[in-house]
Amino acid sequence: MTYTELSHFIRQQQSFLCVGLDTDIKKIPPHLLKEQNPCLAFNKAIIDATAAYCVSFKPNTAFYEAMGVQGWQTLHDTIDYIKINYPKHFIIADAKRGDIGNTSSMYAEAFFNQLGADAVTVAPYMGSDSVKPFLSFENKWAIVLGLTSNQGAFDFQMKGHPELYKEVLKEVSSWGSKENTMFVIGATKTAMLAEVRKIIPDHFLLVPGVGAQGGSLQEVAQYGMNSHCGLLVNASRSIIYAASGEDFALQAAAEALAMQQEMAVLIS
Amino acid sequence: MTYTELSHFIRQQQSFLCVGLDTDIKKIPPHLLKEQNPCLAFNKAIIDATAAYCVSFKPNTAFYEAMGVQGWQTLHDTIDYIKINYPKHFIIADAKRGDIGNTSSMYAEAFFNQLGADAVTVAPYMGSDSVKPFLSFENKWAIVLGLTSNQGAFDFQMKGHPELYKEVLKEVSSWGSKENTMFVIGATKTAMLAEVRKIIPDHFLLVPGVGAQGGSLQEVAQYGMNSHCGLLVNASRSIIYAASGEDFALQAAAEALAMQQEMAVLIS
Repeated sequence: MTYTELSHFIRQQQSFLCVGLDTDIKKIPPHLLKEQNPCLAFNKAIIDATAAYCVSFKPNTAFYEAMGVQGWQTLHDTIDYIKINYPKHFIIADAKRGDIGNTSSMYAEAFFNQLGADAVTVAPYMGSDSVKPFLSFENKWAIVLGLTSNQGAFDFQMKGHPELYKEVLKEVSSWGSKENTMFVIGATKTAMLAEVRKIIPDHFLLVPGVGAQGGSLQEVAQYGMNSHCGLLVNASRSIIYAASGEDFALQAAAEALAMQQEMAVLIS
Repeated sequence: MTYTELSHFIRQQQSFLCVGLDTDIKKIPPHLLKEQNPCLAFNKAIIDATAAYCVSFKPNTAFYEAMGVQGWQTLHDTIDYIKINYPKHFIIADAKRGDIGNTSSMYAEAFFNQLGADAVTVAPYMGSDSVKPFLSFENKWAIVLGLTSNQGAFDFQMKGHPELYKEVLKEVSSWGSKENTMFVIGATKTAMLAEVRKIIPDHFLLVPGVGAQGGSLQEVAQYGMNSHCGLLVNASRSIIYAASGEDFALQAAAEALAMQQEMAVLIS
């Protein structure tokens, strides 16, 4: 998917919502446990219920790896299900990968060619040769960690003069372009979004931390939105675990719809 | 495995070699392609051929993920094979993971409980809550990226005053102990090993970059060894792809033996 296609889809859907598929068998509605593959059944129901209100899905690879080989199969089947049924939705493999060049190339192969994701999240610590292999696939994206939503962001990212995250944004944005690189910027650090936009005014930002982690959607839009929207705001737990009864998908849809309605106002 | 057990095993084997299983179906000997699972057959042969000369095996997860679901099964079967046949060998899942706390917990579950690895490599960019979940498993290890062997190490790790990698060593070493934390320090930066040892004299270092990447084993030992050895030196391509004919395992054994003999002199 190109930058322009994503921007158009956001305008069409009146939404910049990304639904995070952090699917944990211990948290899904108990009645699904009788299904042959409970986590896949859960994902399909959540995807069907929320696709109208979002532009992107983001399976978090950790949750699938924790289920072993079957988990990796479920990740594969989940991405296939989205591609077949919702081909315009932007699929992010939230994997936080990054290694020396020849190894990063294998990760790019895994996520772009084997799994068919549009984007993969990438950790910047190992520098240019760890990121660039993800930038050489046409219409695929590296979403590089900039300023994350967790408490640990204060340990390294916000230290230094200038702060490390600013160095990362400057350096990494020079390795590719706004057509193949996005950045993760946590919604819990909205005060820094204006600083971020001074460095990378045009890039898309993937913004976690709204919802369960407490970030404000309005502040994210106020400081982070650009003329192409330039935002994908992720919510995982607040949507997918909105309820644990038979009506879980309906409640997930209601949560996603509520966010989409807020977003429609912010986009216009 | 405990720090003491690993130190004893190193003395017993007269080796601190780690064999990296970066298994790529495009690079394994062609005659193996007739096997039902060529990569697993290759791994078993390499493991059998080199186990006497090393103390550790390090499958690189990228290479398995690039083969999709079957690759994850091969990773699983490879680790099982080591645990059953060489139970004293230290198994490192080279995965470079790291995410917010609840997600890192899932990665720890995946690598320690599902796959049964002794250690997993971890990226430090996201800070304490991204690393600590790996430290709460008894006799399991987080091997955190400090100063990596690639060119990209100059982009962020070696910038700042003091350099970022020094901050990482200081901070991360305070989150756990030498009993559950190691650091990746590339052999291509041996001049910095003395600096590293000023900050973390007692921790084990996982040292990639000897072999295909050009680092010197003698310099690594000179500047990096402590009284418990404190080193695991990895070689991947130079051992596992030593030859591509029917004698590939024999040639891999010869390469591993040559390194072990050098190491025996350095240990004594």
